[in-house]
Amino acid sequence: MSVRNIDEVALEPVSAGTGTARQVLIGPDDGPNFALRRFVMQPGGGMPRHTNTVEHEQYVLRGRARVSIGDEIHEVKTGDVVFIPAGAPHSYDALGEEPFEFLCVVPNQPDEIAIVDC
Amino acid sequence: MSVRNIDEVALEPVSAGTGTARQVLIGPDDGPNFALRRFVMQPGGGMPRHTNTVEHEQYVLRGRARVSIGDEIHEVKTGDVVFIPAGAPHSYDALGEEPFEFLCVVPNQPDEIAIVDC
Repeated sequence: MSVRNIDEVALEPVSAGTGTARQVLIGPDDGPNFALRRFVMQPGGGMPRHTNTVEHEQYVLRGRARVSIGDEIHEVKTGDVVFIPAGAPHSYDALGEEPFEFLCVVPNQPDEIAIVDC
Repeated sequence: MSVRNIDEVALEPVSAGTGTARQVLIGPDDGPNFALRRFVMQPGGGMPRHTNTVEHEQYVLRGRARVSIGDEIHEVKTGDVVFIPAGAPHSYDALGEEPFEFLCVVPNQPDEIAIVDC
């Protein structure tokens, strides 16, 4: 691939989330080192507290959300950048009336998601 | 870092470009595997044809540009995703009346930029 638009890429439900879908914009077959994905969380949607074995580098494209990372709670908005270290428990709750959309870059390494019991 | 906004990060001129500035949103000190940067090219600005030793995974946030990648020429716009393989000659020319803004992710590996003679 060289260029594609987000409208050309399938948006697939994320089973661990609520009202949450994901697009793989540049996957492991396209890029050698890391993958670029876009998440869309509908108003009231989100993901419960969980861990991943890989870090996340994220950029908020649209909307607002409450994001927990370890012991911190942040309210994030368009133009915010979020770093979630590998293994850190984190969660998302979309806020407001518009979808919460963000890019999420992960390394091309095996990832395992584990829901954290509250 | 966990969360920061683009307005908190210095926007520095890119010497190889014209009317082009760059922010390092998540750098090698923050993320272990790759860096997230944002580029802003003013109307009429851009970067001449050049190569890098690392690949680029990019997402267009705002505006339009003519982008050459190897033998291809693309006109890109908001919501387009661009992959530039390591070593591929590429250039940017901002089009229209608003700034051309994009995110660019690169691996944390040594990079060398070389301008390509036309």
